[in-house]
Amino acid sequence: MEAVVESAGATLAAAQRRPVCVIGLGLIGGSLLRAATDAGRSAWGASASTTTAEKAAADGYDVAVSVDAALARAAAEDALVVLAVPLTALDDVLAVVAREAPGCRLTDVTSVKGPVAEAVARRAPATRFVGGHPMTGTEFSGWDAGSLQLFHEKVWVVATEDDADLEVWVDVAALALACGAVVVPAAADEHDLAVARISHLPHLLAAVLASVGADGGELALALAAGSFTDGTRVAATRPELTAAMCEGNRAALLSSLDDALGRLGAARGSLASTGGLLSTLTAGHDGREALDVARRARREVRIDLEGTPAEFLEAMREVGRTGGRVIGWTPEALEAAFGSEDQEP
Amino acid sequence: MEAVVESAGATLAAAQRRPVCVIGLGLIGGSLLRAATDAGRSAWGASASTTTAEKAAADGYDVAVSVDAALARAAAEDALVVLAVPLTALDDVLAVVAREAPGCRLTDVTSVKGPVAEAVARRAPATRFVGGHPMTGTEFSGWDAGSLQLFHEKVWVVATEDDADLEVWVDVAALALACGAVVVPAAADEHDLAVARISHLPHLLAAVLASVGADGGELALALAAGSFTDGTRVAATRPELTAAMCEGNRAALLSSLDDALGRLGAARGSLASTGGLLSTLTAGHDGREALDVARRARREVRIDLEGTPAEFLEAMREVGRTGGRVIGWTPEALEAAFGSEDQEP
Repeated sequence: MEAVVESAGATLAAAQRRPVCVIGLGLIGGSLLRAATDAGRSAWGASASTTTAEKAAADGYDVAVSVDAALARAAAEDALVVLAVPLTALDDVLAVVAREAPGCRLTDVTSVKGPVAEAVARRAPATRFVGGHPMTGTEFSGWDAGSLQLFHEKVWVVATEDDADLEVWVDVAALALACGAVVVPAAADEHDLAVARISHLPHLLAAVLASVGADGGELALALAAGSFTDGTRVAATRPELTAAMCEGNRAALLSSLDDALGRLGAARGSLASTGGLLSTLTAGHDGREALDVARRARREVRIDLEGTPAEFLEAMREVGRTGGRVIGWTPEALEAAFGSEDQEP
Repeated sequence: MEAVVESAGATLAAAQRRPVCVIGLGLIGGSLLRAATDAGRSAWGASASTTTAEKAAADGYDVAVSVDAALARAAAEDALVVLAVPLTALDDVLAVVAREAPGCRLTDVTSVKGPVAEAVARRAPATRFVGGHPMTGTEFSGWDAGSLQLFHEKVWVVATEDDADLEVWVDVAALALACGAVVVPAAADEHDLAVARISHLPHLLAAVLASVGADGGELALALAAGSFTDGTRVAATRPELTAAMCEGNRAALLSSLDDALGRLGAARGSLASTGGLLSTLTAGHDGREALDVARRARREVRIDLEGTPAEFLEAMREVGRTGGRVIGWTPEALEAAFGSEDQEP
């Protein structure tokens, strides 16, 4: 059978040992530097903040003296470069990438995939870019909030476009798996619509709920229990980070926000006239049940690198679209990569 | 100093030993029967559901053969009757109360206080009613979901109207404290406005969010992480229960829903035009911070039964309005109640 890449075994073996260069050492980037190091990779990082870089170095991690130096080393060692900076800082960092490592293997961990791909095409067009999005986080931020467990059993979306660079796709998937995550392949536009619904809209609703609750004064806050505490948890995130994430996905967020506004308006009308909220609440109950069902029915697959590129990419997207998740490579793929060792490094 | 009630010591002593009759053995009523029994009270319950009654009896609790029988015993033993039925069943149960225990000491555990007080005035006007609302729960329901720990360190609102029956006020507060809760005194209307903001609106937003997310299909559900899981948790509650709770507080919920719709509309307009969500998200961040500050600054007080009734009630409401909570009785009050024993039974 035709292999997706020229030598599937060599590609997978190289991907599993590829050095990792992390630009940005906040919650996600800092956790990634920890997790990649812990997984035995040669991994180094850089931060525009001297304080952050000093903290990471003091914790024993390999930190370059500058973003430029980290990227120059990535070019020299053919590393996978991971951009872990906020969307608002992306253009500036991409300019440095284009200068120091113009043809590098590149991915990102930003929560929106279409706009990042466009920025890369504009600012660093010669890079071999495959976007990524680990679906994890806490309401805290910065190096100190990081943890090498942050990706453990979490979903890491790997962008799966028709023109994807398959070697780099394998690099990104292998890094995600090495960090303990599972891979969900998805086209950038499908990803962006989905995360608007299940991440960006929840952040916006949490903020509005927190405002309305706090306007109720001390008595309301004293009475706040589980539904308010859970419903507003992510409102504690630094608003600048949430704003960058949500605003970066404007078109998709507007569409899911309009969906929510339509449903809330209908509920308001029904409550004001006949008093009935049951249809709204039943639909919500069914939606939440669909989440629980999807979680129980989770399909976990191991993949190899066989088939034509077009077949492989479509098969991967189908895994994601139908609620599947990639948990590793087939024994055959690993044997092709590592021969008689027959195990992941 | 004038005492709130004729004999403060005797009132408190009687309240701490008063038998408890629980009507309705679902999540809240079932937990209350367990907690009151565990606290050493003579406590019995009744359920309109034979299955529920049999389960509670099989678990070793004192269960009456019927609601009528439970209430007749309450009248005979001057017990505090606790109505733990959904709002939609309230009128029917109050008719039985009026027949079997027309002058009983009466409270409830329903989430809305104004409408319950109106129903009691209409259906069982001779009862000595002081409303209550334990702010606790889970997304599960029924006897099996109950636990004697359900009230532990949770807020239990005790309705504190100008015409409150002070003996029964003390009965209800003493029961809440015996179950491990803290008491927040509040006027019924202030309570209803507050819970619309921090309980009923969160339930409605959770339902809408769950619907919008599930409409994103398998990919969206596979990508759902903390913000969606937390933001939709209470949508798993039985929709009939949530509907009864929310619809029972219609006026207050409409007002907080309009507040939320106004804020969401403003966010939508800003996102669509200039793309800015920062003011919405900053307000939300500040609101959530206010919750955390309020929790850290929690003021815990012990109370006695001194002062005129008007002074006592206003002082109690002021405790609630300013974020305070009653955690027990002063040593002097307990000494007056139990003399040289000087301890709670």
